[in-house]
Amino acid sequence: MTTQYDVIVIGGGPAGTAMAGGLRAQGKSVLIIEADLWGGTCPNRGCDPKKILLSAVEAKRQAQNLQGHGLSGVPDVDWPALMATKRGYTDGINDGTLAGLKSQAIATLHGQAYFRADGQLTVDGTVVTGKDYVIATGQRPVILPITGNECFKTSTDFLNLNTMPKRVTFVGGGYVGFELATIARAAGAEVHLIHHNRRPLKAFDPDLVQALMANLTAQGVTIDLDVNLNKITPQATGLQLTDDANFNLMTDLVVCSAGRQPNVDHLGLENVGVTYSRRGVQVNNHLQTANPHIYAIGDVSDTPVPKLTPLAGYEARYLVGDLIKAGAPISYPAVPTEVYADPKLAEVGITAAQASAAPATYQVKTLDMTHWFTYYRLQTPQALAKVVVDKASGRVVGASFLSELADEMVNYVALLIDKQLTLPELQRLILAYPTPASDLQYLY
Amino acid sequence: MTTQYDVIVIGGGPAGTAMAGGLRAQGKSVLIIEADLWGGTCPNRGCDPKKILLSAVEAKRQAQNLQGHGLSGVPDVDWPALMATKRGYTDGINDGTLAGLKSQAIATLHGQAYFRADGQLTVDGTVVTGKDYVIATGQRPVILPITGNECFKTSTDFLNLNTMPKRVTFVGGGYVGFELATIARAAGAEVHLIHHNRRPLKAFDPDLVQALMANLTAQGVTIDLDVNLNKITPQATGLQLTDDANFNLMTDLVVCSAGRQPNVDHLGLENVGVTYSRRGVQVNNHLQTANPHIYAIGDVSDTPVPKLTPLAGYEARYLVGDLIKAGAPISYPAVPTEVYADPKLAEVGITAAQASAAPATYQVKTLDMTHWFTYYRLQTPQALAKVVVDKASGRVVGASFLSELADEMVNYVALLIDKQLTLPELQRLILAYPTPASDLQYLY
Repeated sequence: MTTQYDVIVIGGGPAGTAMAGGLRAQGKSVLIIEADLWGGTCPNRGCDPKKILLSAVEAKRQAQNLQGHGLSGVPDVDWPALMATKRGYTDGINDGTLAGLKSQAIATLHGQAYFRADGQLTVDGTVVTGKDYVIATGQRPVILPITGNECFKTSTDFLNLNTMPKRVTFVGGGYVGFELATIARAAGAEVHLIHHNRRPLKAFDPDLVQALMANLTAQGVTIDLDVNLNKITPQATGLQLTDDANFNLMTDLVVCSAGRQPNVDHLGLENVGVTYSRRGVQVNNHLQTANPHIYAIGDVSDTPVPKLTPLAGYEARYLVGDLIKAGAPISYPAVPTEVYADPKLAEVGITAAQASAAPATYQVKTLDMTHWFTYYRLQTPQALAKVVVDKASGRVVGASFLSELADEMVNYVALLIDKQLTLPELQRLILAYPTPASDLQYLY
Repeated sequence: MTTQYDVIVIGGGPAGTAMAGGLRAQGKSVLIIEADLWGGTCPNRGCDPKKILLSAVEAKRQAQNLQGHGLSGVPDVDWPALMATKRGYTDGINDGTLAGLKSQAIATLHGQAYFRADGQLTVDGTVVTGKDYVIATGQRPVILPITGNECFKTSTDFLNLNTMPKRVTFVGGGYVGFELATIARAAGAEVHLIHHNRRPLKAFDPDLVQALMANLTAQGVTIDLDVNLNKITPQATGLQLTDDANFNLMTDLVVCSAGRQPNVDHLGLENVGVTYSRRGVQVNNHLQTANPHIYAIGDVSDTPVPKLTPLAGYEARYLVGDLIKAGAPISYPAVPTEVYADPKLAEVGITAAQASAAPATYQVKTLDMTHWFTYYRLQTPQALAKVVVDKASGRVVGASFLSELADEMVNYVALLIDKQLTLPELQRLILAYPTPASDLQYLY
């Protein structure tokens, strides 16, 4: 005999736990299943530990920028202490998340979920059934199918390194590669970042990406473009990386940062008619899969938005509401995306490229903010922006930033976009001066 | 024969230059008069230079907080280099402001303005006339009327020190005293901050002020409360500071930080019926003085808001509009106010004290955020907040923050208050995670 739950959630990360908590608060009986660490990628091996490591990188950079301008002496990154600080946070996530779920009277099971048949889910042999199911199993790093790829480490390994190797190489120029390269370089490693074409970070503004690459290069990161790595060979002196042309690099650690893939394997999705592609589980605009009793949210679902933690919570809140009382299809606000490199790169809303294709509708403002007060005081080497303004309404509808304050600016602009603020409306607000926020009026 | 201008603006600071520029853009003929440095207090000897000095203080503090948690080594403040960086900004303000005015075809005169009679203004002997006049002469530091007060230096002097003395004392626990004490301490001075009662920073939440004082004390700032200084005596070994009781302190530099007073002297206001008090030029809710052709804006005007740069621009924009076409009385949004000490103290909107007086209307949430992810990653010693929520609407209507990120948080809350965002509305926004902005949802 098995217990039947109102909803079974597969995956105990940000999407799944938000889903389970939201349903439980509405009085539903909920079981949540996790095969690995409770809490999922973000707090265990994603955004949170990465940003703890970045705290030292940012503080060191700030001190470097002010050398000769008010500070004397640059602190070193103390990797073991930084890693201990990271573990001081991550070590408590699994148990803390589990305790949080239990305190909400959410049933939990640890193990691999597998759909045996419609309405029958097994977890390491135990059969559980639910009226509805929510797949929230997230993503994992892609491992490139090249010779010697058993030598690849992943972002998970990097975020748990006890010591920083002398030579570190990242293969794949997405946001993970850029962020971890920034951290490794600040921690003293000789860093290479390899990308297969000339356009890493392809979702971001190409001019700002070029400027970011120039900044990282100036900091000593070697960026190898147009390199199709095809072999990793362990040698006595390290790992030899080669392509089918002349590329030849010796390194001590090679991290595959060539993207992430949905966790759709081992779930038996084929037994219950749930379809998926390499972009994730296919869902309609109610986040419902091809099986009407099975839904998918968060990183594993194939939705038209970047795979980011706030969207996991957003989709969970939507689906809780829609399961309680069916409503409108999901729609998404402007989504800020960031590369926590040095400097940071961030964008939200309509891009300059999109705007340039509709010149009657949009104006694109290209701003070099390097000499603005906000950046002068920090002695930031470079601060750039592209801002997209809707000509008819005078509203900011998109922006890209490259600066040490890009994360802060892009959040303000997300608010401006959502609240549809024009310049006169913004000027009727009082914001503390001089702060990054008080620069917003100069973006229009 | 004299030229008659549409409007004569007295004072070339943020209020006056915004006023002149706004009127000129509307086609008005404008004369602006400045007796001292073009640009006024804020960029020459106020917010801007202070925040340049704070850049080194903040970066040093950040490195200190991460000692043993990821960084090794603390940079020293290099005062001469920091001062050179400050001058690199301030040295260009006067000429740059003047050039900006001329480029807008605004007439300028340098000298002391004096109302000889209604419709007759002299500037060092030259008579100029306008249909309307706008007084925007700002404020200057108060010098306490005590024995030996010729030994007092002011914030202006402090912001221009070539070397940092060994012992520095601030007399008056307002925001200027706290901010400059923070800077002097970080630059290595032995710092005292003297206040006449037990309640410095009286506009701010008393609990957060207590916590700020404890933090500054831990950093080595000595805060002397309940001291009514009444004498400064130059001695061979320094300046001796005494009260009428047992207080006795030797110092090398004593800065009077006991508030600011409006620049209403030497203007001949009594000749044109303009009234004022020690709070400034009296104006009605159209910023009009007792003389219907004379207005006052910015720090010099007695309006029910703090004297801050963004309000200077705000009042100028209002008055430009009202002079072009008379409209509604001026009204003010929630005004964020900050103390750039270490940590920063900031508040906006309804205070916890105000809310506590109306418990049926407001809920006050007291938050210790020290162990939140945002502050854990920075290893901030303390992060506190009080948040006021309107019970009926569920909107945040006020907040006070004490943390290294208080300046950023208070600006977000100013936006939340103005746009009247409830928690569900905020959660329909996507903000980058993990950032201070993504903490906003936990304030409700």
